[in-house]
Amino acid sequence: MSTEARPADADRPTLPPAARPGLPAGEVDTPALLLDLAAFERNLDRLQARADAAGVQLRPHAKAHKCPDIARAQIARGAVGVCCQKVSEALPFVQAGIGDIHLSNQVASPAKADLLARLARHARMSVCVDSTRQIDLLAAAVRTHGSTLGVLVEIDIGQGRCGVADAPAVLRLLEHLERAARQGAGLHFRGLQAYHGAIQHLRDAAQRHQQAALAAARAARVLTALQHAGVACPVVTGGGTGSVAADLASGLYTEVQPGSYVFMDGDYALNEPGPADQALRFEHSLYLASTVMSTAGGTHVVLDAGLKSLATDSGLPRVCAVGGGATGHRYLAANDEHGIVQPAPGAATLAEGEPLWLVPGHCDPTLNLHDQLVGCRDGRVECIWPIAARGLSR
Amino acid sequence: MSTEARPADADRPTLPPAARPGLPAGEVDTPALLLDLAAFERNLDRLQARADAAGVQLRPHAKAHKCPDIARAQIARGAVGVCCQKVSEALPFVQAGIGDIHLSNQVASPAKADLLARLARHARMSVCVDSTRQIDLLAAAVRTHGSTLGVLVEIDIGQGRCGVADAPAVLRLLEHLERAARQGAGLHFRGLQAYHGAIQHLRDAAQRHQQAALAAARAARVLTALQHAGVACPVVTGGGTGSVAADLASGLYTEVQPGSYVFMDGDYALNEPGPADQALRFEHSLYLASTVMSTAGGTHVVLDAGLKSLATDSGLPRVCAVGGGATGHRYLAANDEHGIVQPAPGAATLAEGEPLWLVPGHCDPTLNLHDQLVGCRDGRVECIWPIAARGLSR
Repeated sequence: MSTEARPADADRPTLPPAARPGLPAGEVDTPALLLDLAAFERNLDRLQARADAAGVQLRPHAKAHKCPDIARAQIARGAVGVCCQKVSEALPFVQAGIGDIHLSNQVASPAKADLLARLARHARMSVCVDSTRQIDLLAAAVRTHGSTLGVLVEIDIGQGRCGVADAPAVLRLLEHLERAARQGAGLHFRGLQAYHGAIQHLRDAAQRHQQAALAAARAARVLTALQHAGVACPVVTGGGTGSVAADLASGLYTEVQPGSYVFMDGDYALNEPGPADQALRFEHSLYLASTVMSTAGGTHVVLDAGLKSLATDSGLPRVCAVGGGATGHRYLAANDEHGIVQPAPGAATLAEGEPLWLVPGHCDPTLNLHDQLVGCRDGRVECIWPIAARGLSR
Repeated sequence: MSTEARPADADRPTLPPAARPGLPAGEVDTPALLLDLAAFERNLDRLQARADAAGVQLRPHAKAHKCPDIARAQIARGAVGVCCQKVSEALPFVQAGIGDIHLSNQVASPAKADLLARLARHARMSVCVDSTRQIDLLAAAVRTHGSTLGVLVEIDIGQGRCGVADAPAVLRLLEHLERAARQGAGLHFRGLQAYHGAIQHLRDAAQRHQQAALAAARAARVLTALQHAGVACPVVTGGGTGSVAADLASGLYTEVQPGSYVFMDGDYALNEPGPADQALRFEHSLYLASTVMSTAGGTHVVLDAGLKSLATDSGLPRVCAVGGGATGHRYLAANDEHGIVQPAPGAATLAEGEPLWLVPGHCDPTLNLHDQLVGCRDGRVECIWPIAARGLSR
């Protein structure tokens, strides 16, 4: 290489980009998170069409992608807005101009309530509560900032995490909320949140649909009791990727919150689809590009991607060829920065330097490890999207 | 609050800092990663003193902390430099002026070799190899950038990951390396790397020391064979936090690479100390500050810290009071952004808004989730250190 070809910053070391538009997808510097744009767009289209047909609003969960470019693609197709799970996570979406964000979670400290009330000056924001203390924190914050917040009471429909148990508990919170509103706080009751995370990952389709129906029935009983008490609930929000066919058919939800459908991870792919899920099959669009970095071991090879590049809480990744094709290679163990892979019996030798794509077991915490998503189409890099909310867990 | 007290940026939402120097440690916005500076400094002093006494150089692994401020504290006490695991991870350390970095890993792509050769213009860099192809990539890169690299051959002493098996394999690589050097590449053989990660986490002290001795003996046989072949190995590097007492006593290692000793995580704390470890007990210095965000469930409470704030690959976190005292509360399950905690039987009620500190199961991937480390002393925030290499896995 001539001296002219040396980078001008040779004496100021910086990190070169992992990819540039036009680069063959197999040549991205690894580990890097890749998005198959065609599969991604089909996933978005598929769910939006089904939600439209069901007359249910789609409010995808942005905790899965943390990426304003993806939120814009969802809203362009008809989504009413997005969900976020943390106040700080919502910030880059507000900054990117996303106009309607539901915080599907409780806010339990003055600092977080303050940030939320500030964000509500720039976007239509709503938030969940399950205690009077949270209402008091929100009331103080919206008074400080002169903003308004939609408030949804979360009910526990079997998840056993957050949320109150029954209609009397909802009514007690509503009374507290109305008192705060009468005293001038810009808090408006918007409805109920009813979410059951554990159902999402039930493998058996019949069991998953049955449990989703039971959870919806539990929410419906609370809703009916509120209606008898003269309380209108304009919104009932909840649901997820695993139960979305049942959620859309339930007659309960006015909006659904799936997140992972955008990517389809290894865990969700293990859900057996039932008859009702057939029109809602999602495709893997998310891959972690990795490279064989050592073959010295002989019977195994070592990839350059481990715990710091992909989440393993829902299982080890599936090993694919560049482009996503099956290989039969097995990812045996994740060290911090290494993945041990057993080549498929009879497969051609895996050479040092060879790229392999991995389907992560769990998409949400995998996205949370990366600063950017490399969008690919027809085998080439098309775009690089910042994962702007990565690490924003406050 | 008066209008004057409103922040000036009320119409330009930004994320307020989690903490400022002087803030009581229990009031940091959560989740936030905290460093108990006194315990941290004792850990650093303790290992440096023991390494000095053993006449072994200390080259702590920066993959554990990814934080140039911590590297500086280690070097100020006598460490000869640091290790990094990825080329991109080394970049912020070079930018921060760390002058001696060993990449304890293989580099298997031209882009990574190129960055390494660029970094070697600014700091004394070395790297591991276990193939001739890696040597060729390094040779091309140092030629391009006119830099020099130390090269260590990694040998497999039982880990079964990277590294060649025996002295003849080392000699074949040395021959290849010498040929590249004769052709003008700035590559210099510096010695051997011999690391066995699995030993680090053996619970039984006798078994751990026995396995460490076996691994060291395996390395010693390779070293002796090289000496018989007339090859000098100025450096033998390896070892980790779990085996460091044995490594220092082995007579094999000229330098050791422990990383986690800085923090002591939940997993390492489960190692039973043997007689030889007694002078090298490390203290928990790393905590994830969290807050009780919902108590609606009644029999459990929900923390605001889950998979996106702490790594669970080596077990769930231990629940402590602010300051690190034991509580007996049990962290039962980590969702993406929630932690389910069962209060200790007979404990005082855990109230919404109450801060709790968690000891992560595995420090390295937990640091990799956070952008900053909040240093505390005597119950107050003292400093905020960027985790500058977070996410740098390329």
